Amino acid sequence: MKIGVADTTFARVDMARFAVDTIKNNSNAKIARYTVPGFKDLPVACKKLIEEDKCDIVIALGMAGQKPIDKQCAHEAAMGLQAVQLMTNKHILEVFVHMDEAKTEKEIYNIAKNRAEKHALNALALLKGKTSLAKYAGMGRRQGKQDEGPIKA
Amino acid sequence: MKIGVADTTFARVDMARFAVDTIKNNSNAKIARYTVPGFKDLPVACKKLIEEDKCDIVIALGMAGQKPIDKQCAHEAAMGLQAVQLMTNKHILEVFVHMDEAKTEKEIYNIAKNRAEKHALNALALLKGKTSLAKYAGMGRRQGKQDEGPIKA
Amino acid sequence: MKIGVADTTFARVDMARFAVDTIKNNSNAKIARYTVPGFKDLPVACKKLIEEDKCDIVIALGMAGQKPIDKQCAHEAAMGLQAVQLMTNKHILEVFVHMDEAKTEKEIYNIAKNRAEKHALNALALLKGKTSLAKYAGMGRRQGKQDEGPIKA
Amino acid sequence: MKIGVADTTFARVDMARFAVDTIKNNSNAKIARYTVPGFKDLPVACKKLIEEDKCDIVIALGMAGQKPIDKQCAHEAAMGLQAVQLMTNKHILEVFVHMDEAKTEKEIYNIAKNRAEKHALNALALLKGKTSLAKYAGMGRRQGKQDEGPIKA
Amino acid sequence: MKIGVADTTFARVDMARFAVDTIKNNSNAKIARYTVPGFKDLPVACKKLIEEDKCDIVIALGMAGQKPIDKQCAHEAAMGLQAVQLMTNKHILEVFVHMDEAKTEKEIYNIAKNRAEKHALNALALLKGKTSLAKYAGMGRRQGKQDEGPIKA
Repeated sequence: MKIGVADTTFARVDMARFAVDTIKNNSNAKIARYTVPGFKDLPVACKKLIEEDKCDIVIALGMAGQKPIDKQCAHEAAMGLQAVQLMTNKHILEVFVHMDEAKTEKEIYNIAKNRAEKHALNALALLKGKTSLAKYAGMGRRQGKQDEGPIKA
Repeated sequence: MKIGVADTTFARVDMARFAVDTIKNNSNAKIARYTVPGFKDLPVACKKLIEEDKCDIVIALGMAGQKPIDKQCAHEAAMGLQAVQLMTNKHILEVFVHMDEAKTEKEIYNIAKNRAEKHALNALALLKGKTSLAKYAGMGRRQGKQDEGPIKA
Repeated sequence: MKIGVADTTFARVDMARFAVDTIKNNSNAKIARYTVPGFKDLPVACKKLIEEDKCDIVIALGMAGQKPIDKQCAHEAAMGLQAVQLMTNKHILEVFVHMDEAKTEKEIYNIAKNRAEKHALNALALLKGKTSLAKYAGMGRRQGKQDEGPIKA
Repeated sequence: MKIGVADTTFARVDMARFAVDTIKNNSNAKIARYTVPGFKDLPVACKKLIEEDKCDIVIALGMAGQKPIDKQCAHEAAMGLQAVQLMTNKHILEVFVHMDEAKTEKEIYNIAKNRAEKHALNALALLKGKTSLAKYAGMGRRQGKQDEGPIKA
Repeated sequence: MKIGVADTTFARVDMARFAVDTIKNNSNAKIARYTVPGFKDLPVACKKLIEEDKCDIVIALGMAGQKPIDKQCAHEAAMGLQAVQLMTNKHILEVFVHMDEAKTEKEIYNIAKNRAEKHALNALALLKGKTSLAKYAGMGRRQGKQDEGPIKA
């Protein structure tokens, strides 16, 4: 198995390192890396990782600023990532952190680390098959913060 | 007939169970399951259910948070589901619940259950042909809450 | 000539009836019908009417609620309809009514009827060729309400 | 060379006339016309002008109302026009006028005329090659109103 | 190597000049130029630069006005640029400047210059391979203004 890890120079946290470490600590998967300027450059990078480097799944890591235009750009990147997945039939786990998710830089750092690590584990689970995550269906799992858990009936 | 049921670990209600039970109680259709982390992972999962598992229709179940960014993500997932349908000529019934649809967790639970069950029945109806729902055309049917009914002329 | 008529069980007015009656009263065109749960199910239905039923044009009728999320869903449906048209080189006339277009149910009913009827006539005109509507170019025509007419130079 | 001119019956100004007159006064290009109900019908019309009528470029003229839903519809039409250009490798010059661009009908009329005429000239320039507009690069040219001109360093 | 430089007559700064000068001062890459009226004309121009002129990467330079409709148009252009990248597997570096990014024309000029130059260097880096920017991953690099730098753990 080969996992693509695509990240940006725009981000203020080296999120790829957390993803790579988690993959290495939990699998023997090969890793292909691609670093681009910003998250709008990620979709074609992910497509190239899948098509040129034969990655089976990709983790796309990016960080968004606080302004409305940043949300718009995140949307454009996310739409691109949707398209790549449908063109290749491969999952791309979008690991985006928004600077307005927290009030301090330390919190942003922790969100970025937690989200990257948990989605790296999600990538490994998805590689095992369509039902490997079924035991957690509807369990209110979160990446970047604590799980919310299921609503009691 | 084979029905795909795609759901998420993000959701706080096990909506797939309601859909699966309804399908089993009302048909002999086979079911293929796919669980992914969040609803933005659903489009490619649905495409794989259709193309790899030969599903004739898919029910895509997810839950969205309350923040503006959650609406944006729901939009991205929904656009992906549109694209998959047009790439495969198969229906995907989008069963999304928004956490701001109700004030209590109990209400959210009931909306999720009602919406999943009713759309499972819609899926069975659509499998019967293009006019099987025609008798309900313009009747103000709702999923997740009570029907509004038709406007009197 | 064959005209597809796609509508929903969500709508609170049987808009398809107005479209079908108008087509029958003004042409010998064949009609193929497809009823789906909501307007987000319309794009793939329209594509199937064009590809499976060989329709030359489709009228897609739907109704949208009053909340922001309803506008977002209408946008998703509309984007899907755009894609189908470009994939098939066939027109799809989008006949959507928004519940906030009027204050009373009676007005909504009248808008729905007027819009469905006028767009059925537009469909017949478009089937006659690229310039059959040219005499009305820039004339401020409206569906669902009275024409606004051209601006005087 | 053949230029497509697509317009609508919704618009309140016969913008196509201005475009056609400008083309005729400045070139020997052939013109193919297509009139549709509203601007959301323009993308497939433009695609048909390119594919069926072999147009080398298309001018798409439309007018948008003042409400938020009108902006949303303009966005849908614009996204469709983007898709057609990428499917055909032909330019489509979008000449849309928004009713909230001016306070009087007379101003709207003048904007529509000026924008249609200037974009007709742009179409002729683009047909001459990739660098025919390079001398105006960064010059703050506007259609529908006066040029803003370049910012002084 | 060949680099496409696509720009507009709408912009009020000749951003292409900064990009071209930076490329020439730092490489022997060939340059193909394409100037269009506005940034919504850029996507098809970039696609033609890649497909007709065999460019390996494209820099797309544009400027957006201050009104909400301008943001919407920027979004449409950006979505088009995403699509082109996925259709061609080539990067397109989007170098857009928004007129509301600064209060004075001088600042806008400096942002435009800085952003164009830095993205020209990014283009050269991306041409060297998938990991040539990896040393800057998560370093908070910015184009158009000073780098923000990484968040300290």
